[in-house]
Amino acid sequence: MNVLLRMNVFFRWIPACLLALSLGMPAGASGQSVARVEPLHWWVGMHNPELQLLVYGENIAAYEPEIVFPGVQLTQVHRVENPNYLFLDLHIAPSTTPGNVPIVFNGSDGRTFSWEYELKAREADRTKAQGVRSDDVIYLIMPDRFANGDTSNDIVPGMRETALNRDSMYYRHGGDLQGIINKLDYLHDLGVTALWLNPVLTNDMEQASYHGYAATENYQVDPRFGDNELYRKLADELHRRGMKLIKDLVHNHVGLRHWTVLDPPAPDWLNQWPTYTNTTYKDQVIFDPYAAEADRKRMTDGWFVPTMPDMNHRNPYVRKYITQSHIWWVEYAGVDGFRLDTYPYNDLDFMADWGRLIKAEYPELTFFGETWVHGVPNQAVYTQGSTINQRFDTHMPGVTDFQTHFAIIEALNGSFGWTDGVNRLYSVLANDFVYEDAYRNVVFLDNHDKSRFFSEVGENVDKYKSGLAWLMTTRGIPQLYYGAEIAMKNFANPDGMVREDFPGGWPADTVDKFTEAGRSVLENDIFQYIRTLANYRKSNPVLQTGRMMQYVPEDAVYVYFRYNDEKTVMVVMNTGEDEAEIDVSRFEERIRSATRAKDIINGNTVNLTAPLRLNAKSTAVLELL
Amino acid sequence: MNVLLRMNVFFRWIPACLLALSLGMPAGASGQSVARVEPLHWWVGMHNPELQLLVYGENIAAYEPEIVFPGVQLTQVHRVENPNYLFLDLHIAPSTTPGNVPIVFNGSDGRTFSWEYELKAREADRTKAQGVRSDDVIYLIMPDRFANGDTSNDIVPGMRETALNRDSMYYRHGGDLQGIINKLDYLHDLGVTALWLNPVLTNDMEQASYHGYAATENYQVDPRFGDNELYRKLADELHRRGMKLIKDLVHNHVGLRHWTVLDPPAPDWLNQWPTYTNTTYKDQVIFDPYAAEADRKRMTDGWFVPTMPDMNHRNPYVRKYITQSHIWWVEYAGVDGFRLDTYPYNDLDFMADWGRLIKAEYPELTFFGETWVHGVPNQAVYTQGSTINQRFDTHMPGVTDFQTHFAIIEALNGSFGWTDGVNRLYSVLANDFVYEDAYRNVVFLDNHDKSRFFSEVGENVDKYKSGLAWLMTTRGIPQLYYGAEIAMKNFANPDGMVREDFPGGWPADTVDKFTEAGRSVLENDIFQYIRTLANYRKSNPVLQTGRMMQYVPEDAVYVYFRYNDEKTVMVVMNTGEDEAEIDVSRFEERIRSATRAKDIINGNTVNLTAPLRLNAKSTAVLELL
Repeated sequence: MNVLLRMNVFFRWIPACLLALSLGMPAGASGQSVARVEPLHWWVGMHNPELQLLVYGENIAAYEPEIVFPGVQLTQVHRVENPNYLFLDLHIAPSTTPGNVPIVFNGSDGRTFSWEYELKAREADRTKAQGVRSDDVIYLIMPDRFANGDTSNDIVPGMRETALNRDSMYYRHGGDLQGIINKLDYLHDLGVTALWLNPVLTNDMEQASYHGYAATENYQVDPRFGDNELYRKLADELHRRGMKLIKDLVHNHVGLRHWTVLDPPAPDWLNQWPTYTNTTYKDQVIFDPYAAEADRKRMTDGWFVPTMPDMNHRNPYVRKYITQSHIWWVEYAGVDGFRLDTYPYNDLDFMADWGRLIKAEYPELTFFGETWVHGVPNQAVYTQGSTINQRFDTHMPGVTDFQTHFAIIEALNGSFGWTDGVNRLYSVLANDFVYEDAYRNVVFLDNHDKSRFFSEVGENVDKYKSGLAWLMTTRGIPQLYYGAEIAMKNFANPDGMVREDFPGGWPADTVDKFTEAGRSVLENDIFQYIRTLANYRKSNPVLQTGRMMQYVPEDAVYVYFRYNDEKTVMVVMNTGEDEAEIDVSRFEERIRSATRAKDIINGNTVNLTAPLRLNAKSTAVLELL
Repeated sequence: MNVLLRMNVFFRWIPACLLALSLGMPAGASGQSVARVEPLHWWVGMHNPELQLLVYGENIAAYEPEIVFPGVQLTQVHRVENPNYLFLDLHIAPSTTPGNVPIVFNGSDGRTFSWEYELKAREADRTKAQGVRSDDVIYLIMPDRFANGDTSNDIVPGMRETALNRDSMYYRHGGDLQGIINKLDYLHDLGVTALWLNPVLTNDMEQASYHGYAATENYQVDPRFGDNELYRKLADELHRRGMKLIKDLVHNHVGLRHWTVLDPPAPDWLNQWPTYTNTTYKDQVIFDPYAAEADRKRMTDGWFVPTMPDMNHRNPYVRKYITQSHIWWVEYAGVDGFRLDTYPYNDLDFMADWGRLIKAEYPELTFFGETWVHGVPNQAVYTQGSTINQRFDTHMPGVTDFQTHFAIIEALNGSFGWTDGVNRLYSVLANDFVYEDAYRNVVFLDNHDKSRFFSEVGENVDKYKSGLAWLMTTRGIPQLYYGAEIAMKNFANPDGMVREDFPGGWPADTVDKFTEAGRSVLENDIFQYIRTLANYRKSNPVLQTGRMMQYVPEDAVYVYFRYNDEKTVMVVMNTGEDEAEIDVSRFEERIRSATRAKDIINGNTVNLTAPLRLNAKSTAVLELL
């Protein structure tokens, strides 16, 4: 997550407990009653029969809750410092008949009131938790900036931010879930198989609510994006097309206006400091055997930015509150995978527990953590297994692979040298022995926090295509950022212009780059380039799960292969300034007796018995014939 | 090993078998007899009772060897392609009485001749195999360039190189073992506890024989350095002073005039190629899960330089021949530790076996491999344990830590940034979780292949002292390169001027920088700086084995501590361009209630209740009081 873009909010830091006093109870809490119960509902027959309900209501702790319902046991009632909260531990037997479970709250004065808590039956036919793997191609969308399918929700009265301003990167633009649903055929045609949306939970913040990383609710889609049902529909529409939905989760922090921040259950609900303390963003302290406790605490418990309070993951109620909400969204909507924001800033112990619980519930579901760090060990330490991290298992299948991201930029922009240019990329991939399975890592050229790759390579089309060819053919799960296919550009800093709207996504747009007619020649060229590679990848397991072989780069030319029993694909990347002539006999191990290959991009047949000629900065993807 | 310096020899590559024809048998092999047997002798009561003798003599394979000696069994006789060799497997019972074992060679024509093979008693009182650990300070000497203690051996008639030319880096200069022995009191006073000499085995090469990495004998000290007995005396003289001897071993290659290269036992004694093939020097292929076999072979079996044939470590005779020679030198001379040249170029499987055998024989002996590679995983993969390398255990305790070497240069020369300047150093050390024990790594500022550190930091005395202070206080085994204490300078490339003579080491030298009077003010300043730190380290376990704690660098200031139950040493390195004022309250975890500290360099008392002030680019080493 980009710090600059998240910080662009004006609040001074105010102790959350003071905020609560000034804001009081939510509207609707009149007299003695329950204001809300979370999770909103639950299901019978989950793998884990335990559930902890957070019950919120004025002075609710003064009441004694009681549940009489066959199969449901109230095993423990927890009271915390704030009397407006009760935490109820329920055991739900698999034999329980779904229905509304009455929770009766008995007062010492004989007054009672109750809450009907719904236990649903699990939907056996709902596709969900499929997992996202190296046979997928992920497309990342910033929902406010992709397509506005419902202008009626652009401004939602009563919410803290109501301004709409498409001219500024820091205001809402009106994109929404319906806009995304409208473009699923477009994305399917492009070859995308999985959508990762930046978080869509309600961000009822005064400023910069568009990015989604400052949640104020855990169980509600932001009304400006749509509603929970529409999110569920998005999942359905994806699944109907054989595509998947990735939910972006933020364990580390919430928005300063999160309802539990406004009236915290306990002083230790958040990581509080005597004076405002920012995280150092220094991941090293997490694994450094020599780290000082003070540095570790500042990294983990310091706030990401002043407007996003840091959750205290050592608080057991926080842990359950967070974890259950994630399970809820899978079960409710049919989410297939998770992207975990700011992974190194979380309590690792909590995250490992979380991972175990998620996997226990959904063995096929996968997740990958954002690891915006520098260095292979720094990144690999967060991946599951004890391949590099002997002391701790995170149980996290994969990460956002920032190391190959940095390396592909160096490969295309740097000068070829012993450790530089494409040797950097080669070397980073050679380090894959430190992972249990590097194919579970998400590879990318850019994302919502990084400069658009087309700008990163100086708008050089050959370099851009080389980057895209690499992305679609290297090991891992490729991730595109919306607009990559129309060569959108700009730099991340200082203005976040990488979050511009997709032209054509708004009814008022004068050009529609979702259509061939709306795209320029260059844009159509890039669109077809990605479409060809993504669809080739989609229909050819060799690029999904095929083994990889890479050769020591020579003269700025990097050659690698993907291969399985059926096919062999040879990728030749010339990162040099001159045309390259490549004697392929060096690659005999993989080329074997093949004498011809098909160029995947243009369909041409290439003769392998003569030296290959390749333009400067360009890459060929060749299927051996 | 620096490739440029090793390559500076004029030979074209000639298949070794052709050379053998032209050179014939060694002098002395007249008629049917044994020309030589290696190891030269052996001992009764070694941990491993097995011994393989290499017997060399014209057409010796036509004879049937026989041993009749109580306790000694000739278990197997191996014949190889070249009839001039026999390999004899002996089993030596621990109860064997030391003495000369007659080996009788019986010809089919009834002629016999014999060889008396000596089995010595082990010397119980000989100090040996002590191991070199983080309580040591290593001093690396290039023997030809340190001190000439015996001018009579400067030129040895009959050897291939007889020119002596102190004006050229590529000729011999005359330094020798006697010269080193003469300076042991000097080194002891400086605070050195272990000597690492570049290889001293005979290098009977036409050119550049001085560096020692092109051995032509395995059991003979180069006559221009002295002889075996003098090497043994060097060990004695070191041990008498509580110091240790590290032998530099080259498993990977020998000189093109090695006697077994001139008449190879078998075609697969060396790694041979149809045409000369150099190694790629690309370490990545060793661990890269995607590496091509062709690249692996070129890296491992390719020759380091044309004048140094690559030993075939898959040949079982080669393995034993190499391994036994190393054990021989420990047992004979009393070597305490090994430095292993060009580690990644060896067959890892052989090296692991070698490590197991050495440790079985000498459990306390330690060794460290040269790992001139880029990247923590690239380096750590060669260290023992399965901390990072799940698939293979090298059994090697430590490595030459090139990663901290690169990082200390960046720390002092680079600009402070998120990943640059001293953050690089901090970050590399934070990666220590990948090692079983990073304290076993050898840290260094420079060596015979690298630019002199004083030159590397632009002859900036503050930077130089900062580097030295770091070297003496960080984790690991510090290694100085001869002349560091008199601020010798120059760059490694292109001319190898980092191998200049130590002024005063030659009788004809007009200045003697081994003495205070011979040194300039600057040189005495540096000398005392190192002497103070090295001797402080020698007498304070806190800097040897004490735990380490490092803090996230701020404003280009890097602070770390070494501590144990007795003492705490605080190191403050200001790598910035300006004087720094450091509030030490951030380091409360380690400073605790201390209010004063002693500056180890100047003895001053420092007040810790006020901010510390530190000049640009300078480092303070403070013992808390």
